Amino acid sequence: MRYSPLLTDFYELTMLAGYLEEGMTDEPAVFDLFFRHNPFNGGYTIFAGLASALDYLENLQFSEDELEYLQGLGIFRPRFIDFLRGFRFTGTITAVPEGTAVFAHEPLVTVEAPLAQAQLVETALLNILNFQTLVATKAARVNHAAAGATVLEFGLRRAQGPDGGLSVARAAYVGGVRSTSNVLAGKLLGIPVKGTHAHSWIMAFPDELTAFRKYAEVFPAECVLLVDTYDTLKSGIPNAITVARELREQGYELLGIRIDSGDLAYLSREARRMFDAAGFPAVKVVASNELDELVIESIRSEGGQVDIYGVGTKLATCSGEGGGALGGVYKLVRIGDRPKLKVTSDVAKATLPDRKRLLRAVASDGSFIQDIICLAGEEIAPGDTVYDPTNPLQHVTIAPNARLIELRDVVMEGGRKTAVPAHSLDELADRSVAQLAHLPQGCLRFINPHKYKVSISRGLNELRQRLMEEAQTTNR
Amino acid sequence: MRYSPLLTDFYELTMLAGYLEEGMTDEPAVFDLFFRHNPFNGGYTIFAGLASALDYLENLQFSEDELEYLQGLGIFRPRFIDFLRGFRFTGTITAVPEGTAVFAHEPLVTVEAPLAQAQLVETALLNILNFQTLVATKAARVNHAAAGATVLEFGLRRAQGPDGGLSVARAAYVGGVRSTSNVLAGKLLGIPVKGTHAHSWIMAFPDELTAFRKYAEVFPAECVLLVDTYDTLKSGIPNAITVARELREQGYELLGIRIDSGDLAYLSREARRMFDAAGFPAVKVVASNELDELVIESIRSEGGQVDIYGVGTKLATCSGEGGGALGGVYKLVRIGDRPKLKVTSDVAKATLPDRKRLLRAVASDGSFIQDIICLAGEEIAPGDTVYDPTNPLQHVTIAPNARLIELRDVVMEGGRKTAVPAHSLDELADRSVAQLAHLPQGCLRFINPHKYKVSISRGLNELRQRLMEEAQTTNR
Repeated sequence: MRYSPLLTDFYELTMLAGYLEEGMTDEPAVFDLFFRHNPFNGGYTIFAGLASALDYLENLQFSEDELEYLQGLGIFRPRFIDFLRGFRFTGTITAVPEGTAVFAHEPLVTVEAPLAQAQLVETALLNILNFQTLVATKAARVNHAAAGATVLEFGLRRAQGPDGGLSVARAAYVGGVRSTSNVLAGKLLGIPVKGTHAHSWIMAFPDELTAFRKYAEVFPAECVLLVDTYDTLKSGIPNAITVARELREQGYELLGIRIDSGDLAYLSREARRMFDAAGFPAVKVVASNELDELVIESIRSEGGQVDIYGVGTKLATCSGEGGGALGGVYKLVRIGDRPKLKVTSDVAKATLPDRKRLLRAVASDGSFIQDIICLAGEEIAPGDTVYDPTNPLQHVTIAPNARLIELRDVVMEGGRKTAVPAHSLDELADRSVAQLAHLPQGCLRFINPHKYKVSISRGLNELRQRLMEEAQTTNR
Repeated sequence: MRYSPLLTDFYELTMLAGYLEEGMTDEPAVFDLFFRHNPFNGGYTIFAGLASALDYLENLQFSEDELEYLQGLGIFRPRFIDFLRGFRFTGTITAVPEGTAVFAHEPLVTVEAPLAQAQLVETALLNILNFQTLVATKAARVNHAAAGATVLEFGLRRAQGPDGGLSVARAAYVGGVRSTSNVLAGKLLGIPVKGTHAHSWIMAFPDELTAFRKYAEVFPAECVLLVDTYDTLKSGIPNAITVARELREQGYELLGIRIDSGDLAYLSREARRMFDAAGFPAVKVVASNELDELVIESIRSEGGQVDIYGVGTKLATCSGEGGGALGGVYKLVRIGDRPKLKVTSDVAKATLPDRKRLLRAVASDGSFIQDIICLAGEEIAPGDTVYDPTNPLQHVTIAPNARLIELRDVVMEGGRKTAVPAHSLDELADRSVAQLAHLPQGCLRFINPHKYKVSISRGLNELRQRLMEEAQTTNR
């Protein structure tokens, strides 16, 4: 899809016009994209959306039509419209790969570009990355709760806009939810599409058994029956068993049933028992109805026998405590040769200045110990003292036997994607699942999770301290 | 924009394939779109998205490319692909106008079409109408809280997907929020776009005063300054006053300042006082930072002096208690000559069968008394007894002196929009504002609002009762 360069907040354009007047459009600038809290009050975040963001950057160009609209607003000079006509993104992007577990304060994406370019792309980068990262994180949580059972995303009807549904399907896949009901996502992204029938199918026939038989007739090899239109245990499952017997006589096996209401833990146990007793132990039980990671966890803890969870609204809209939006921000960290920070009375909201590296300390068994943010040119080694980014008085030592790995790659140079191989959605999903497995167990807890340690280096800590003092002097 | 016919849940297609095999695709069907609870635990809902939905229906057609994808899935017969090739929507749509205050159980949109057509469009109609209605409702709440102050929507960076941001801008407008930061929405929908500069503008200059002066130089007539980068009261506002004086010497007036952090009630009062004292009573105070209707209400109740509220994330994502998604559903209410209902043990979730009308009882001063849902052919008059849709034992009398007005129009016939004049976004926004003014005051309360009365007619009540009894006999 083409992302319009007008997919931006108006103030990006007024600032650009200002930079043009001031002769500052080409000042070398560095911006970091990061967030301050894991969504869902959770213990981790799964980064996603980078491929979409790079597509946006690589193709960024104003059409004549778009320039005409801007001119018509009557606020911009012709010189600025000309400037936009020649506008391309020619910068460098350094980023964490999609599917990586990331944490507050970490520079997920760094944009190095002439000031005007780096500024204009703020809104679109945030829009794309905030939402896909939010969804991937929710999907990883849901997938983790399902503990090996399959999860199907089917939130399109309640997604926030038509394209929202498409982003959901992609990002959910990165988070480990590998099928969707969204046919357009199937076509555009190659994601397996799944689905059976709705209550309306049942209601279009004189009775439930007839409706089941007709569906089995059309899809004998892919038959999943929705059993809760009238009464799940007294009508739906007995009728489904009748159809399962008829299918078997024709050489087919009923694939599954879906329960979309009621006490899913209880009904799934009963369904399992009834199908097993009738000689159909392979029939899958699909459960749906306002599911999220917490409901799935409780269904499992009550011995629910669910093989496939259909998750809709709460995955597509990422609702729930601490959800709805990822509060990702995009901040200037360097301009020309001057490292920059946004000063604030609250040190937790102060930015981390200058070009940086993001490292992960990994134990010999591959488990993640902590992350460290340091200055680009700074040497860091196991055993070094590092500091809490929100409280410089707290410091720890990097585990002496840890291996330090670089978490980010240069994925774009001169406005073109680098040779870093593009990853398939499956590789990204594999990565996110593996990342969860390497996190401290407590980080995976949904309620009150363990806080994964992210530290800043001595050099970065000192630079920040110095810049805060300078800024307070200059502006008083 | 083109909505792909693949913007659908996979099960719509499997059902269609089934209906084709059963020779049922052309059975005349009637579906209703409705919801069961006002979002945000509120007292009303503002309907929006109809124009987008009609565009989708009028242009619904599979491309060869899309058919090829479906064929490649290996589950559909060639005959079904041929059927889809000729697929058009030729049905009739009856709907409430956008901007109308609507309530639970009311048939907002009724689709009458051959079964296959009416079924296929379910997902896209729900996607479009659920989200735009949710946003319009949130916008109406925010706008009502602002009590005449201007509201600016700038949630694009946290919106759920790029197009999500566009739907937000449109629907927010219908709800009464008449400007946006989203430039693409400005171009595509003609909505006024607004914005000034970010903290990064300030940080790109050596100090705040220089940054302010430079911005004023470029936009002397449209200058709004962000005053909270360093210290709002000690640095930002004094510097802005300096620039206001310099602008005045050049014959310009500073337009406003924006405060994006801190105690907005207190800071806006102080800002007002400082600008008034300095001789700038016309400078507008813009406030932003995680605003929603509840925060705005509390700022006002504490005497905050805000002229313009910038509302971002919480409007764009409709987060908050009871938010995130509108739970609109789409249910079969008639097929062939048989009225239908979805039976359930919970009468509150049972559907309202058959073709219906939606009426509003209006007092002589224009205020809304109650709504009534009746059967299409049924005569209804003031003084009639009507019933609670979730509890048939409760009944009331329609106020004898009320005027009954029809809430819905036929907006599409034979798949083409009817001559019902298309409304401009401004007319829709005017309507939503007027609707709020006619609701019982208590419905506008954010916490524990008055429940507006929606009743069903005697005929509808009896039909539902009879169908529930029949269904329970048939399926046991």
